[in-house]
Amino acid sequence: MTHRLTPLVASLPATVPFTGPETLERRQGHAFVARLGANESGFGPSPHAIAAMQAAAAGAWMYGDPDMHDLRHAIAAHHRMTPAHVMIGEGIDGLLGTLARLTIAPGDPVVTSLGAYPTFAFHIAACGGVLTRVPYAHHHEDPVALLAAAIQTRAKLLYLANPDNPMGSHHPGAVIAAMLPQLPPETLLVLDEAYADLGPEGTIPNISPDDPRVIRLRTFSKGYGLAGLRIGYAIAHPDLIAAFDRIRNHFGVGRIAQAGALAALEDQDWLSQVKAKVASAREQLRRIAAENGLTPLPSATNFVTMDCGRDGEYANAILTRLAAQGIFARMPGVAPLNRCIRVSVGDDAAIAAFANALPTALAG
Amino acid sequence: MTHRLTPLVASLPATVPFTGPETLERRQGHAFVARLGANESGFGPSPHAIAAMQAAAAGAWMYGDPDMHDLRHAIAAHHRMTPAHVMIGEGIDGLLGTLARLTIAPGDPVVTSLGAYPTFAFHIAACGGVLTRVPYAHHHEDPVALLAAAIQTRAKLLYLANPDNPMGSHHPGAVIAAMLPQLPPETLLVLDEAYADLGPEGTIPNISPDDPRVIRLRTFSKGYGLAGLRIGYAIAHPDLIAAFDRIRNHFGVGRIAQAGALAALEDQDWLSQVKAKVASAREQLRRIAAENGLTPLPSATNFVTMDCGRDGEYANAILTRLAAQGIFARMPGVAPLNRCIRVSVGDDAAIAAFANALPTALAG
Repeated sequence: MTHRLTPLVASLPATVPFTGPETLERRQGHAFVARLGANESGFGPSPHAIAAMQAAAAGAWMYGDPDMHDLRHAIAAHHRMTPAHVMIGEGIDGLLGTLARLTIAPGDPVVTSLGAYPTFAFHIAACGGVLTRVPYAHHHEDPVALLAAAIQTRAKLLYLANPDNPMGSHHPGAVIAAMLPQLPPETLLVLDEAYADLGPEGTIPNISPDDPRVIRLRTFSKGYGLAGLRIGYAIAHPDLIAAFDRIRNHFGVGRIAQAGALAALEDQDWLSQVKAKVASAREQLRRIAAENGLTPLPSATNFVTMDCGRDGEYANAILTRLAAQGIFARMPGVAPLNRCIRVSVGDDAAIAAFANALPTALAG
Repeated sequence: MTHRLTPLVASLPATVPFTGPETLERRQGHAFVARLGANESGFGPSPHAIAAMQAAAAGAWMYGDPDMHDLRHAIAAHHRMTPAHVMIGEGIDGLLGTLARLTIAPGDPVVTSLGAYPTFAFHIAACGGVLTRVPYAHHHEDPVALLAAAIQTRAKLLYLANPDNPMGSHHPGAVIAAMLPQLPPETLLVLDEAYADLGPEGTIPNISPDDPRVIRLRTFSKGYGLAGLRIGYAIAHPDLIAAFDRIRNHFGVGRIAQAGALAALEDQDWLSQVKAKVASAREQLRRIAAENGLTPLPSATNFVTMDCGRDGEYANAILTRLAAQGIFARMPGVAPLNRCIRVSVGDDAAIAAFANALPTALAG
């Protein structure tokens, strides 16, 4: 069969970026009682979004609008830019895949952080890009070192998530904006703002959507609670946005997804309520961590990363013992970040289940 | 901006495979009363599928299972094969895009028919493949000429839709199966069976899912009436199916889509009813065409292609005058197929609207 694959694909490993919780449930033979591993929003989507999806279901015999006109215009109005600055795709994952194909030919240099979002690296590898991975500075991504690596390698892309996943840290938006003039001319900053809706004031940098040096990525999966729809969007200079049309799956964002996202965007009250609930749940998780001798890291996201104080093997054992008690959580993939476990916020029942399970997991 | 794009992407045209009906509606300033241009199912999805999607909406805060376990097992059981033979993706369009990336490096030869499904050619172009386009034999794709072109060019892929779009014709499954031993060793047959649910008995070839010479593509968009969900599947040798995991968007098929497709698959009674309705509506469309002096071509699909007897300019003028009366239809993109218009089946109201508009469109 490998004779059918391109030499590039034949060289790729057979790994996948993430194993889903359903697969873990099937392996362990019991369901999770608390789903706190994928940074989903246990507070759910807006009731208006649920109603819009339900209303759209009967019309699912029609393809979604491939131009995604209504949603694109609503996003543009929300951010005070034009629809030409906005491209909607099958989640940030889908947009990252298309962006990689637009910009990365085999051998092209790309910079990311060591331990940052694996799906970005997955898509770069699929295009034959050569990754330079810059260590975190404690629990922060390191803008100075990332810039230095981009300059040294003349990177085509520099990927940075702010707020960050998996560590939950953030830089003030002004720090991100200050990176732009220092980028080498060949480098496009890929700013993953999946958690931007949940960060403290000032996290979102003041960058013109016409700035050709950056592409920003947003999602309906986190604050808006619509991970199961797979819908996100990119904000960039209209020329770069237009290039997506050359290769993207034009009908890839379905009709129910567009309807649900539009209704979610229009219910900013719900997003405000979710932000307050997330902040409160973060505090509960921090307290639970501290009470159990773990060190909770500051979080600008919908999860709390907890330093377990030892190595990856230890953190992994804790995860395994949490899973045995029905708690789905995750951990960073590489050292030294893998001294931590990462626990998403959830509703009161989910957090109580975690609080109940953690002492046993640590005593194991 | 072009300095950011790969040389391949920079060389691609800025065209899109299809302009959606919503865009046409915005341009013309009025809505279509009959949506008969995209081969959607105006008979809608199964009520069980609608109910399943509505029930799944509240759970849309959770990512869909990236392994798509339940749906994959159900599809495998339905076709009497194993889940390892099945890959689910964001419609056949999405699967074709991933397949192109798996198999086509710049310069690789690919064979298709002149005027066949444009999205296949779109994805091949995005990978730098070199297309050989084989003329239709009257209103059929030409297996003998396609094979000859594959042998001559040592094609990596040979694309064939059976039943065919945009002409609506089909070959008996035995004709397709007989192609396999004649394929050169480098050629994978890409058999697009989007309309297989709607063809006459014997259209689906008897091919082992373990046969490494072919990949077959199915969809929930046509017979099952779920175009707006964007969900289709590939059937192939497990080694080729496994290769999709190396590059695909793992969470690309959402939770509501998986739930809707699973319920649709389980309601085979609905599919049978739709098949009967499609057959009846095809006959109505054929009669309307004949009454107006057009020649309806035989159809094994959910649309009827009508030979207007002149050239593409004439057929396009008819489409324009249909659109002015609120009828959305389409036509093949290249000569000589573009002597035709292509009209999807629909419910009684949609067909009546077409019957009412056609004489005026032809008199214009």
